[in-house]
Amino acid sequence: MKAVVFKAPYELAVEEVEDPKVETPLDAVIRVTTANICGSDLHPYEGRAELDAGMVLGHENMGIVEAVGAGVERIKVGDRVSVPFNLACGTCRNCNNGYTSACLRANPSGNPGAGYGYPQMGPYWGGQAEYLRVPWADFNLLELPPGSDFENDFTMLSDIFPTGYHGTELAMVGPGKSVVVFGAGPVGLMAAHSSLLRGAAQVFVVDKEPDRLMLAEQMGATAIDFSKTDPAEAVLDATDGFGADCGVEAVGYQAHDPAGDEHPEMVLDNLVKAVRATGHIGVVGVYVPEDPKAANDRAKEGRIAFNYGAAFEKGISIGSGQCPVKKYNRELRDLIIHGRATPSVIVSHEVPLDDAVDAYDKFDKRIDGYTKVLLHPGT
Amino acid sequence: MKAVVFKAPYELAVEEVEDPKVETPLDAVIRVTTANICGSDLHPYEGRAELDAGMVLGHENMGIVEAVGAGVERIKVGDRVSVPFNLACGTCRNCNNGYTSACLRANPSGNPGAGYGYPQMGPYWGGQAEYLRVPWADFNLLELPPGSDFENDFTMLSDIFPTGYHGTELAMVGPGKSVVVFGAGPVGLMAAHSSLLRGAAQVFVVDKEPDRLMLAEQMGATAIDFSKTDPAEAVLDATDGFGADCGVEAVGYQAHDPAGDEHPEMVLDNLVKAVRATGHIGVVGVYVPEDPKAANDRAKEGRIAFNYGAAFEKGISIGSGQCPVKKYNRELRDLIIHGRATPSVIVSHEVPLDDAVDAYDKFDKRIDGYTKVLLHPGT
Amino acid sequence: MKAVVFKAPYELAVEEVEDPKVETPLDAVIRVTTANICGSDLHPYEGRAELDAGMVLGHENMGIVEAVGAGVERIKVGDRVSVPFNLACGTCRNCNNGYTSACLRANPSGNPGAGYGYPQMGPYWGGQAEYLRVPWADFNLLELPPGSDFENDFTMLSDIFPTGYHGTELAMVGPGKSVVVFGAGPVGLMAAHSSLLRGAAQVFVVDKEPDRLMLAEQMGATAIDFSKTDPAEAVLDATDGFGADCGVEAVGYQAHDPAGDEHPEMVLDNLVKAVRATGHIGVVGVYVPEDPKAANDRAKEGRIAFNYGAAFEKGISIGSGQCPVKKYNRELRDLIIHGRATPSVIVSHEVPLDDAVDAYDKFDKRIDGYTKVLLHPGT
Amino acid sequence: MKAVVFKAPYELAVEEVEDPKVETPLDAVIRVTTANICGSDLHPYEGRAELDAGMVLGHENMGIVEAVGAGVERIKVGDRVSVPFNLACGTCRNCNNGYTSACLRANPSGNPGAGYGYPQMGPYWGGQAEYLRVPWADFNLLELPPGSDFENDFTMLSDIFPTGYHGTELAMVGPGKSVVVFGAGPVGLMAAHSSLLRGAAQVFVVDKEPDRLMLAEQMGATAIDFSKTDPAEAVLDATDGFGADCGVEAVGYQAHDPAGDEHPEMVLDNLVKAVRATGHIGVVGVYVPEDPKAANDRAKEGRIAFNYGAAFEKGISIGSGQCPVKKYNRELRDLIIHGRATPSVIVSHEVPLDDAVDAYDKFDKRIDGYTKVLLHPGT
Repeated sequence: MKAVVFKAPYELAVEEVEDPKVETPLDAVIRVTTANICGSDLHPYEGRAELDAGMVLGHENMGIVEAVGAGVERIKVGDRVSVPFNLACGTCRNCNNGYTSACLRANPSGNPGAGYGYPQMGPYWGGQAEYLRVPWADFNLLELPPGSDFENDFTMLSDIFPTGYHGTELAMVGPGKSVVVFGAGPVGLMAAHSSLLRGAAQVFVVDKEPDRLMLAEQMGATAIDFSKTDPAEAVLDATDGFGADCGVEAVGYQAHDPAGDEHPEMVLDNLVKAVRATGHIGVVGVYVPEDPKAANDRAKEGRIAFNYGAAFEKGISIGSGQCPVKKYNRELRDLIIHGRATPSVIVSHEVPLDDAVDAYDKFDKRIDGYTKVLLHPGT
Repeated sequence: MKAVVFKAPYELAVEEVEDPKVETPLDAVIRVTTANICGSDLHPYEGRAELDAGMVLGHENMGIVEAVGAGVERIKVGDRVSVPFNLACGTCRNCNNGYTSACLRANPSGNPGAGYGYPQMGPYWGGQAEYLRVPWADFNLLELPPGSDFENDFTMLSDIFPTGYHGTELAMVGPGKSVVVFGAGPVGLMAAHSSLLRGAAQVFVVDKEPDRLMLAEQMGATAIDFSKTDPAEAVLDATDGFGADCGVEAVGYQAHDPAGDEHPEMVLDNLVKAVRATGHIGVVGVYVPEDPKAANDRAKEGRIAFNYGAAFEKGISIGSGQCPVKKYNRELRDLIIHGRATPSVIVSHEVPLDDAVDAYDKFDKRIDGYTKVLLHPGT
Repeated sequence: MKAVVFKAPYELAVEEVEDPKVETPLDAVIRVTTANICGSDLHPYEGRAELDAGMVLGHENMGIVEAVGAGVERIKVGDRVSVPFNLACGTCRNCNNGYTSACLRANPSGNPGAGYGYPQMGPYWGGQAEYLRVPWADFNLLELPPGSDFENDFTMLSDIFPTGYHGTELAMVGPGKSVVVFGAGPVGLMAAHSSLLRGAAQVFVVDKEPDRLMLAEQMGATAIDFSKTDPAEAVLDATDGFGADCGVEAVGYQAHDPAGDEHPEMVLDNLVKAVRATGHIGVVGVYVPEDPKAANDRAKEGRIAFNYGAAFEKGISIGSGQCPVKKYNRELRDLIIHGRATPSVIVSHEVPLDDAVDAYDKFDKRIDGYTKVLLHPGT
Repeated sequence: MKAVVFKAPYELAVEEVEDPKVETPLDAVIRVTTANICGSDLHPYEGRAELDAGMVLGHENMGIVEAVGAGVERIKVGDRVSVPFNLACGTCRNCNNGYTSACLRANPSGNPGAGYGYPQMGPYWGGQAEYLRVPWADFNLLELPPGSDFENDFTMLSDIFPTGYHGTELAMVGPGKSVVVFGAGPVGLMAAHSSLLRGAAQVFVVDKEPDRLMLAEQMGATAIDFSKTDPAEAVLDATDGFGADCGVEAVGYQAHDPAGDEHPEMVLDNLVKAVRATGHIGVVGVYVPEDPKAANDRAKEGRIAFNYGAAFEKGISIGSGQCPVKKYNRELRDLIIHGRATPSVIVSHEVPLDDAVDAYDKFDKRIDGYTKVLLHPGT
């Protein structure tokens, strides 16, 4: 089959690789109808996170089941399915408790959590390819209505819609609450969309890219351009000086100031300022325990020197980590089906698999409006 | 002042009564700008619940603070405020825990829970009058923005918007869930509105009155006319045979079949059928432990012979009881202020205080579209 | 193998039947080291619930894994395991959400929920036998420390310890709460034990059998003999007239008064009286939607005419249904391992498999102190 | 009256000051039967936190009501009461939501949260004195049984028992969980006691003082001496390499290594290592946004450079802040009354008010076993 193969930082190829097969009785193989390029695909692309040459990229996948193992009973050949980016066994303690993001058995390294086509997430090929092997298929796959309706909405169910939603869950967003989301990339926009779905009264979105801020406004949020105004002050002003009830971090460890300099603690500092005493922060922007190319020595070993003292004094809780997609994807799917959620609004480009290398390049350089790129390899 | 005074069943008068005054250091007196007539006002009106002659009616009140006692510090004269229908002390164990609906100190009878102008809820006059005394004013009153904006929305904060919302809380409505609401009276419609605010994917509303069902549809719900179709079957059909995740009872003990006969267990039976195994039911329609005029002997002593055996087998939880308004009214107020909630859509009539007797008569007979009537006595 | 086989009401046999085998890639077969007789085994035994002749009884099972299918990877031959009484697929929506008691795929009837050796729970043989087939073994089986320590404690993990605990979960028992448990059978005693583990300040247990009440006292609860005193009054007296915060129903639809007459609504009525306004009731005693041999016509169709009107007025929530064992069994296991829980205190008899027929007879007649009987068939 | 008066760092006096009086209709004055010295009293004592000369110290108080204002109705003269260390108005948004630790009205500075005799917590005198004024008495005071039983247990209800318990709440301790508590001072020991009350299966307590570790063992916890072993490794070893489910920080910003050097990030780092992926950390040891005498420049402005990257990767949540005492003190009181909790085990000394200066000196120097000192000024 054809697939997007990682060679080295800034060096990908679309080339023929071996077809994936059913390897265990619990596997399925799907034909990939849509695979998205994710912001976190840029971590290995830019060499910020190390990846073995030869890996097929792509953890945001959906498609049609082509083959199943002898122990797969629930999912049938021909089913249209969404593939959560966390690859999970379904039977370990963490999976039992709903933490598929910390599956104890799927990652041969022994670390909790596995995934497709991603550094340190196991040997599993990604889905920017014509076909994809899905282990523990009955557990991992979410069934979708047959046909092709809502394809560009459903494709957001594998990662960024649940991930943005998870940020709002960690931040305890609920009806009547005020919410500030830092970052108007795909995940931040999904957090804003999720906040409104959960009944927030006010949603602020902080970024500096005009097109992203415009999308936030179109969703019903209030845009704050941090290159022009102090974002924490703006939120305080709009909330009678108290701050937002809830804050979502959708930026991560590579946070930049308007001048382009990296400040790993900048967004957390702003959140601690912008969120009210007794409030809640949910962090879904990625932070890592080791980051050899970080901006300072502390951050190289995961130390983020934000104002935790202020967080303590304000009694703010901080929830963190990768989204356990299965916890949310069924309900989010139903919101799409019933016309209440439309995550596809953030799609900027749909390109053929053969153009994936060019798409990565433009997405990485943030040119030509490349924000959220979809491939449709198996169609 | 002028007030709506209860004389006897089906006999009210708008007449001069003594002005309420600040009686304790914790009291406030408000000038009532809006007071609603509530479906439960019909319980004493129809003689179904016994009330002393001379009581001023009305528990859905808002207005402007005219006077405060020496111990009232937070609320100031001139503040515009909403008055929750539960009158609560703010310092007993139940108030501490948020159950203002079961205040242990406000009702001289010793029973948990007190209110304004209502049977068995204490000696407190209601607000269908020019002025209203509010005990424990700092605790009970919710501050509103000054002016007169959103008056007909804010007036729903004293009872039916929070009460409908409480039904959805007891029923554990959340994003992506399916919900069935029995009853499209004001509370049922508020439950439907609340379900959508909380992110429900599907909301069904069951009633037989075309105008109410039309309002439900306008809100974004699916109307089910139980005089034409079996409502539980209709919900099962629309949910792949599983039933709704959540059910709200907004009818109460006087439930009638299409022929007009009272069946106290009818709605609970339908809910147990229409809600899926593992689902949740929230009951805010009123049931009572003693009902001398009930349709059968069991119901006279509060015994509602619904199919509890099926509820057990399906593992359905049932939450019940009066809404603790303070638990929700601040967030619901903010949803109104920010344009996300518009409970005023259910207002059918606004009438002068002097016409209140006529309005009760029409509302009781359900003629001329009398669904939700507002008085503006102190304006 | 030898097994306890149901022939007809009051007619069992211990006889040779075919050995169970691995039938699907996801099955395991275990050698049963301990199988308990449960109070609910008496429902088919007494003919109150209809069961096909030939069924092997027993849903409280533990043992050693003898064989596994090709798709079983987590559990290994030789593992010591506890078998939850709910037989669940692990991949349907209800299993995903933790409701293994309402698995949508395991019961060929299409009804939610399956089990071993029990009416209407599917064709699966029970474990009062030398061997037991366990479908979806990786999902269903809980691993135990090797050896034979704590055997009589661990055997309570398959049903009654989690079931009693589930009652306390539905009743929202927590630190400092007061709890009343109706029924001092094995499940009621486990609910009392669980209440104390969860930090309850006061636990009352209501029954009329002196030996059971003595066990309750030994656990640290206060016994109430309802043949001598009004149990609801006794609880009110001991809680300053307020009632208990939490109530657990561990009796079920066959509740008897002291004279031996069946009153299906008696225990729920007492709970509604004995639990405080704003309190919570958890029902794990079994109620059924159809009971042809019930004491009255209403109860024959599942209608339990308890005082729901009072429950509404008091704002009491009622949670009901079978326990999803997997939700609790890991933590309860760890409490046993670390010496904090000792559910084995309720074991009254350990008998050879060959004496099972006699044990059923005595247990059913409640003679010779037969309260909780253990078989050790495969040892 | 006589009182412990702050003069300057390391300089206190027991001297005559003016008697407190009822100043508002909502005040009470109590005769202090017991007032504890708290570890956080050492912050101003050592000059680490700035306090005005003349302040009466003491925020852990209980006593008998001597006088009440005209608006105090619930609490009566003669009542025996516990005074939560958070001084709260009872009617602001945060008090309504149970966050009495962040009361918006009690602190004239405008900052959320007020207290007695403490830096930045308002002008309110403390209770290391014969009498104490308590504002908003009906809301703040917890009634106790009359007499003098349990005096040394009940006195822990004002601060450290609820504070330790709050750590376990933030860390989501529950039945069957494993817990590691850093710090075996009074709060840490109360967190260990609370963990066991909440049903934890395993509790580890980390400190280096042998007497404190012995108390932890006596409570049923496992002591870990971090001067002799790596505490995170010890916890990992005892939990099959996974780490504890829950971690409690009961040390704060002045954490010292065994050599006595201060490392503000040391305990958080250890917790992130010792707590399992998907686990929860509750921080009740105090951190501050400004600390001019801190060990490094970052910490001077509240920046605690712990390994947040690892916390993110492990999906660990962190709850922080002062305990809202009213949320817990009623249930904890009931556990004392019913003999299930005995926080008095940590009392090391009871001294006359006149010896308070000496007691502070010894407590500060941690000599003669001064761990938890009680004064009984008004007896």
